[in-house]
Amino acid sequence: MGLTLGELAVRFGCELRGDPAVLVGQIGTLSGAGPGELAFLANPHYRSQLAATRATVVVLDVASAPLCPTAALIHSNPYATYARIASVLHPEPPASAGAGPGAQIDASARVAASASIGAGTVIGPRCMIGERVRIGAGCVLGADVQVGDDCRLHARVTLESGTELGARVCLQSGAVIGSDGFGYARDGSGWTKVPQLGRVRIGADVEIGANTTIDRGAIDDTVIGAGVKLDNQIQVAHNVHIGEHTVIAACTGISGSTRIGARCMIAGAVGIVGHLDICDDVVVTGFSMVSHSISTPGVYSGGIPAAPAALWRRVVGRLKRLDALAGRVTRLERGTHSPDSRIQNDE
Amino acid sequence: MGLTLGELAVRFGCELRGDPAVLVGQIGTLSGAGPGELAFLANPHYRSQLAATRATVVVLDVASAPLCPTAALIHSNPYATYARIASVLHPEPPASAGAGPGAQIDASARVAASASIGAGTVIGPRCMIGERVRIGAGCVLGADVQVGDDCRLHARVTLESGTELGARVCLQSGAVIGSDGFGYARDGSGWTKVPQLGRVRIGADVEIGANTTIDRGAIDDTVIGAGVKLDNQIQVAHNVHIGEHTVIAACTGISGSTRIGARCMIAGAVGIVGHLDICDDVVVTGFSMVSHSISTPGVYSGGIPAAPAALWRRVVGRLKRLDALAGRVTRLERGTHSPDSRIQNDE
Amino acid sequence: MGLTLGELAVRFGCELRGDPAVLVGQIGTLSGAGPGELAFLANPHYRSQLAATRATVVVLDVASAPLCPTAALIHSNPYATYARIASVLHPEPPASAGAGPGAQIDASARVAASASIGAGTVIGPRCMIGERVRIGAGCVLGADVQVGDDCRLHARVTLESGTELGARVCLQSGAVIGSDGFGYARDGSGWTKVPQLGRVRIGADVEIGANTTIDRGAIDDTVIGAGVKLDNQIQVAHNVHIGEHTVIAACTGISGSTRIGARCMIAGAVGIVGHLDICDDVVVTGFSMVSHSISTPGVYSGGIPAAPAALWRRVVGRLKRLDALAGRVTRLERGTHSPDSRIQNDE
Repeated sequence: MGLTLGELAVRFGCELRGDPAVLVGQIGTLSGAGPGELAFLANPHYRSQLAATRATVVVLDVASAPLCPTAALIHSNPYATYARIASVLHPEPPASAGAGPGAQIDASARVAASASIGAGTVIGPRCMIGERVRIGAGCVLGADVQVGDDCRLHARVTLESGTELGARVCLQSGAVIGSDGFGYARDGSGWTKVPQLGRVRIGADVEIGANTTIDRGAIDDTVIGAGVKLDNQIQVAHNVHIGEHTVIAACTGISGSTRIGARCMIAGAVGIVGHLDICDDVVVTGFSMVSHSISTPGVYSGGIPAAPAALWRRVVGRLKRLDALAGRVTRLERGTHSPDSRIQNDE
Repeated sequence: MGLTLGELAVRFGCELRGDPAVLVGQIGTLSGAGPGELAFLANPHYRSQLAATRATVVVLDVASAPLCPTAALIHSNPYATYARIASVLHPEPPASAGAGPGAQIDASARVAASASIGAGTVIGPRCMIGERVRIGAGCVLGADVQVGDDCRLHARVTLESGTELGARVCLQSGAVIGSDGFGYARDGSGWTKVPQLGRVRIGADVEIGANTTIDRGAIDDTVIGAGVKLDNQIQVAHNVHIGEHTVIAACTGISGSTRIGARCMIAGAVGIVGHLDICDDVVVTGFSMVSHSISTPGVYSGGIPAAPAALWRRVVGRLKRLDALAGRVTRLERGTHSPDSRIQNDE
Repeated sequence: MGLTLGELAVRFGCELRGDPAVLVGQIGTLSGAGPGELAFLANPHYRSQLAATRATVVVLDVASAPLCPTAALIHSNPYATYARIASVLHPEPPASAGAGPGAQIDASARVAASASIGAGTVIGPRCMIGERVRIGAGCVLGADVQVGDDCRLHARVTLESGTELGARVCLQSGAVIGSDGFGYARDGSGWTKVPQLGRVRIGADVEIGANTTIDRGAIDDTVIGAGVKLDNQIQVAHNVHIGEHTVIAACTGISGSTRIGARCMIAGAVGIVGHLDICDDVVVTGFSMVSHSISTPGVYSGGIPAAPAALWRRVVGRLKRLDALAGRVTRLERGTHSPDSRIQNDE
């Protein structure tokens, strides 16, 4: 399909600089797009690519517009505008309503007639599947699962019993929602399993990445707020609460009963200890360990950039003797050091 | 179902303070439970919630009992006692014996008549499935897999060929047991795969979390001892041995051929290097890298708590120059510094 | 099956010290192998096990050969030679061509007659499956997936639409290729999904571990070069490029648009920030955060070995006050400290 620049400008609220009758049919990168393609410039870092672009039109903000050699669609939020245009130019292929071959739907489940159920997918007792839901192949839904309208499950997703999804939730392949929380009581020399009786409740417009896992609550529920975006291979333990519109990048783990506020941005490979309270609007940079509650919005870090190994070995050696180094400084301040004190104390 | 406090006291060996004829039907949290519900107090941290609880009965220890405003079931291990009561009040829904629709069981497999095989599950040649085993939907068992009595596989679990599970092993959804170990021999400019010919042997009463992976051994087997508890998204490489009753939290990775002792507690997001020996009764706190063998029981740490980003940037900068700082201190001790030496050497 | 030492020497280009008529039938470890078994010695660390081995023959290099009490197959690369012999002595069990029970193959897919498709596997429209491909049970291939000759998919692998695999690619169970990249545009108080329109292209001879995830590109493709080996639970974000023959160990995450060169070796639990360029022949040791591009081949590190917790607590405390310590040293150098300055400034 194609749309004219004029149609795009009207539909997406852009100012158009260029011929409104020109057609674009698909999107491309600023450096790779060719004739008939639409590109975007959101990050000023790539502004240098603008001069050479062969795209038919570029979506950008007013500050970059004078540098644009082609037609321009000007918007204060070029990235979100690009996203909206791209989803119109490249719609998902339609899924036919009904159940694919080999799907097993329990007789007590209620599945909207407009829903599409993939081949081999298993839907348990008393599940409720909303309008226009698309469930991929090889998914397993336990008993009493509720899936809101317009949800999208990619292939091989597990929703364990009692899971609730709001409208328009999207899960990538391999995600597991509602697995048992990690709860064991010490019992003599071993451990006794603590039954995990809560559920997972997920708000509207949540996205969950491939092979991400979210455990059911121990007694109360694990709760993911509306608009939350979780990347791949994230682990969310039992009874965690994540506030609305918080985004979390891949490989991050959140321990049990921690509460994360709204609009937080947690980078990748972060570890968050259990039973913490993280307030709204907190940013955590990558590879950090969060081991205390945070009550002040702001940016928090704990990662250390890699260095050449020879340098790093010396740093690690010094680090382990940091206490001794501080003691040497104290003795210098007090005038109680001796010229060879470093031999006794440190090196 | 419901049980009287008298029945609970007798069955679980508690001292009862309260009316033995009173019924409880389900469990709840100390702060959330209402009439007819049983709560517990195991962590003294929550003792302040005791005064306001509306639970019908609380399981707690003798030290907390005087503060309990309701009936009390007193036990020296209230958490394990709660766990046992909860599993009686909230039993798992029964699974009907036999194979679900679309299950594919090889003719040479031996499946106990009391076992339940989920829809679409595939069971390979010569598998042996014990009594009362429950296998969820969408699982795949390769050839020659042995599953002990009373095992529980949630949905979409893979047991590759030759895997052995003792009795009462529980695997959460998405777990993969017996994948090939990561073994390649350098060969000219590339790598030649080293066939992974061992298996995975898992003892009784082991629990394995969602999307956790355990590789088969290269020649000998990978071995998980009885009573081990593994959380979600743990990676266990080939030929690792984990001793009995060790517990490991989510997102931890253990490299090849490492041996971990019994009764260890490894927190989340820990990385353990290969070919190490970790002795019994070692505790590793979260986000630590274990790069040397440990021969003394105790607590080991390597994680650094996140700090406000501005502070952290300065710390990282100083860290990279720690060697220079130590040199400055040495010159001060020797009296060979000059007032402007810091300009030459460090800042 | 068995082979004589003479046959092995000829076929794998070894010098034989021993009786060429002797048969070996399987492999074993140096310490565990018995009569009729072949072992290898590649790591000089294990040379002490050589004297006591009961193997019939040992594959080793010329330097270790004089110490070998048994027959020896001598090769300059004993580990790769062992790997090749092991794959001949222990071939994978044959898979019968054709589709297993319950497999669902779209009518428009082209599947080679020599390919084996596992039970319950779903193959989407217009897929092309090459000669001798083996696909395990419970896999899901979306539309327009291309699988090269001799590929091997273990159970429960997802290849989302448009994924391309070169020849001889091997994927372990639970791997997800072609999931949507993590792309959202900030949009008022929430986030708008950026359609992920690229694909994943994987070169020949690539191996991908269990539950590893590789996202499709946002516009252009995510590209994995020929001969790359990825361990379990690795996360590769959208538009990452990984150069030929690079190996990456488990639990490592690579953020979006980063390019990693050829022949790199990335250890486990490494985090690599997005939009970086890592040149060829870089080694990154375990548990490191790579936050800057690397343009010089070499070894880079950022992990800190765990220490006894009491020591580590003091180090962390000192670390957070490192700036103050450096200030104290500067004042000492300037002669502006006072004997009690440490009280004001630090401790």
